[in-house]
Amino acid sequence: MSPFTMPAMKIPEILLVESEHRPGSLAKILQVIGDAGLVVEHLNSVRRDQGKTVWEITLEMDEEADRSLIARIDALPNARVLGRSDRVFNRHEGGKIRMVSTTPISSLQVLRDIYTPGVARVCLAIRKDPSLARRYTNINSIVAIVTNGTAILGLGDIGPLAGLPVMEGKAALFANLVGITGVPILIEETDPERLVEIVTAVAPSFGAIQLEDIASPACFRVERLLIERLDKPVLHDDQHGTAVVTLAALINATRRVGADLLASTVGQIGLGSAGIGIVRLLQRYGVRRILGADLNPEAIARLERYGGRGTSLETLMAEADIVIATTGVRGLIRPELVRKGQIILALSNPDAEIEPFAALERGAAFAADGKGINNVLGFPGLFRGALDAGVPRFSVAMLLAAARTIAAHAAEPELVPDPLDPGVHAAVTAAVREAALAPAGEPVSVDDA
Amino acid sequence: MSPFTMPAMKIPEILLVESEHRPGSLAKILQVIGDAGLVVEHLNSVRRDQGKTVWEITLEMDEEADRSLIARIDALPNARVLGRSDRVFNRHEGGKIRMVSTTPISSLQVLRDIYTPGVARVCLAIRKDPSLARRYTNINSIVAIVTNGTAILGLGDIGPLAGLPVMEGKAALFANLVGITGVPILIEETDPERLVEIVTAVAPSFGAIQLEDIASPACFRVERLLIERLDKPVLHDDQHGTAVVTLAALINATRRVGADLLASTVGQIGLGSAGIGIVRLLQRYGVRRILGADLNPEAIARLERYGGRGTSLETLMAEADIVIATTGVRGLIRPELVRKGQIILALSNPDAEIEPFAALERGAAFAADGKGINNVLGFPGLFRGALDAGVPRFSVAMLLAAARTIAAHAAEPELVPDPLDPGVHAAVTAAVREAALAPAGEPVSVDDA
Repeated sequence: MSPFTMPAMKIPEILLVESEHRPGSLAKILQVIGDAGLVVEHLNSVRRDQGKTVWEITLEMDEEADRSLIARIDALPNARVLGRSDRVFNRHEGGKIRMVSTTPISSLQVLRDIYTPGVARVCLAIRKDPSLARRYTNINSIVAIVTNGTAILGLGDIGPLAGLPVMEGKAALFANLVGITGVPILIEETDPERLVEIVTAVAPSFGAIQLEDIASPACFRVERLLIERLDKPVLHDDQHGTAVVTLAALINATRRVGADLLASTVGQIGLGSAGIGIVRLLQRYGVRRILGADLNPEAIARLERYGGRGTSLETLMAEADIVIATTGVRGLIRPELVRKGQIILALSNPDAEIEPFAALERGAAFAADGKGINNVLGFPGLFRGALDAGVPRFSVAMLLAAARTIAAHAAEPELVPDPLDPGVHAAVTAAVREAALAPAGEPVSVDDA
Repeated sequence: MSPFTMPAMKIPEILLVESEHRPGSLAKILQVIGDAGLVVEHLNSVRRDQGKTVWEITLEMDEEADRSLIARIDALPNARVLGRSDRVFNRHEGGKIRMVSTTPISSLQVLRDIYTPGVARVCLAIRKDPSLARRYTNINSIVAIVTNGTAILGLGDIGPLAGLPVMEGKAALFANLVGITGVPILIEETDPERLVEIVTAVAPSFGAIQLEDIASPACFRVERLLIERLDKPVLHDDQHGTAVVTLAALINATRRVGADLLASTVGQIGLGSAGIGIVRLLQRYGVRRILGADLNPEAIARLERYGGRGTSLETLMAEADIVIATTGVRGLIRPELVRKGQIILALSNPDAEIEPFAALERGAAFAADGKGINNVLGFPGLFRGALDAGVPRFSVAMLLAAARTIAAHAAEPELVPDPLDPGVHAAVTAAVREAALAPAGEPVSVDDA
């Protein structure tokens, strides 16, 4: 999952509000919402009758804001809160994925071909030459989406079952965007060694392994050990998927203001799985001067093993030409810390470390938040490309190829392309496959020593 | 998988044979096949031009028969073997299953509802009340199809990857017949305890566990331990699915000749997973006198722990009113052993322990082979019914309800119904669900002490 949505996250609430057909009545409702410090994410009229309209208003807020807001809307003369919309829940009803048979089993002869006795011949062929499994089974398109539920979205350690809707969401995106069969694998285990053993034991079922929402630092060790043990691609999306999309955004941001990314000093605020993933990918892209800030000394030590330099938030802001923040802490970057000409990507969702307009006011050359920067742009094509190439592991070259391709597909003023554009995923797939087939790829894993 | 297909099994070969358009030319080809002792399983004209027709002839045979047969067909004046058909392999190309998204992800708002940030609300709801996972995820329709590949069809221990086409076949049938998402889980582990640990570790991902093609006697222990440890339905199909369909066939066979199944002495030849499963289910149905024959003393000991009596093949044939054979050994029952008035189900595929006509000739009241008796009739409705009922385990009552329902749906002269009739699966589902919700179910597992 995106690490840009961090602890204390707000989650979308959809209010159903009835307004009378009088000029300005909707405006008054929206003003009350604005006065509460909330941003309208989406607005939809769902019913209109007898001089009244029912609006579905999507807001990101916590429960506290929720209660006081409803009272204030109800206090308006021409408005009334009817309740909450079930739209999001309705879209999850019954789950979001389903296995289908690719062959209609229309006759007993088809049954005898795909099942006993015909299937025996296919089994024996694979027994004789295991590489035929790629051709006569779905193994080359099936990916385990593995989580232990310890870092689900920004919600933290809520356990794997409560994380299942996220894993099903990944699977639905895999299916929709690149035709991959994603299977959520939920494991209640926090010990990295045991988690690795379990995943290794079921790995023969899958063509590749996507690690998902596993807390740092266990995620580094789990990924490294699995890459060592398995002869199939393994990728921790929170590290590398996020890094790929961030690099793509940064390529475009620097190009737009005429900055030289490779010659810049980059400051990474927040050194969890996303932060470390970003630092490592930037280094491999060619960035040499990296500063990092984090409250956790272990995270700083990890950064310094890679040749980055740990420092305070203040020093980082003073020295870095480019600042990336993935902390989940709203308003962490005080405007007075911004240096003239800086490029700032404050990526935490839903609330950035600094609002872009505030950074620009203080002289930043470019500033953006994390809205629209979505790792959905990366993981589908990364896995499809790796599987199509038939390689045993992801390489840094594959990640860089994906980032460059995503960057190239963005249309101004966006930093990255529309994640629902199938053309992007086809292009990422092709670029990753090509990079996979080039010789001498360096593995992606982070040293977890 | 059906245990009725046992070691030294023949598997279907499809020959492409060209015949000239002369009266009797096809008959001559078929006569050569008949003279080779082979039965035509299926015949299909695939091309017809310029005075010639190309036939797809499906035969069950081994490689030895194959070579000599081709030479003999080529020796005919008006025929020529063109090669083998790839029809079976074509039907497995790319695999037989695929995950799909149940929601079209048509806009960024849908993406935000099913993925971040909207999904967070669904995660939190499940965190608060885990039973909501049944409603807002696919967990109640997803079944692991677990194998270690030690007893794939009648092919033996060919490993889990070579068994994958069978597991995908199961998944395709689950999808087609009852809308269950079946996920092949391949585990390279033969130690029962370790296998149980691995399955337990990934069990949170699934609503139920189907054990498949795990060799006896490990299968008994694996099933019993999983039933004890997991609060979700676990069923070893080779034991119970097969037993359910066999009981259904036996209900109809005895009814047809006016025999009293409950008052009969039943002889079970072959006490592997299928044989033990059949014995246990017959006992629970109410059959009191059970004889068993097997070359393995451990299997006899297992039978006797359940109150059956081990004996020789000859004594069994002399004493049993009803004989069931699941040994995989062609022609094991010599015709002179058949007793007048006996009911004989010689279930091994493709070659029965005794051909029905030979048994009838010797005075059997009823005789059938395993063709058409397919556990596809049982497992889909068993799992759908258990999941719909939301019960934590299968009970004997559920197996019996499935068997009675399957029996009731057969139309004479068939012993069991058409496995592709959706009405059968809906009826089995309903009967199993109803039985599941009745109080005090006895668990299905076999004591593996």
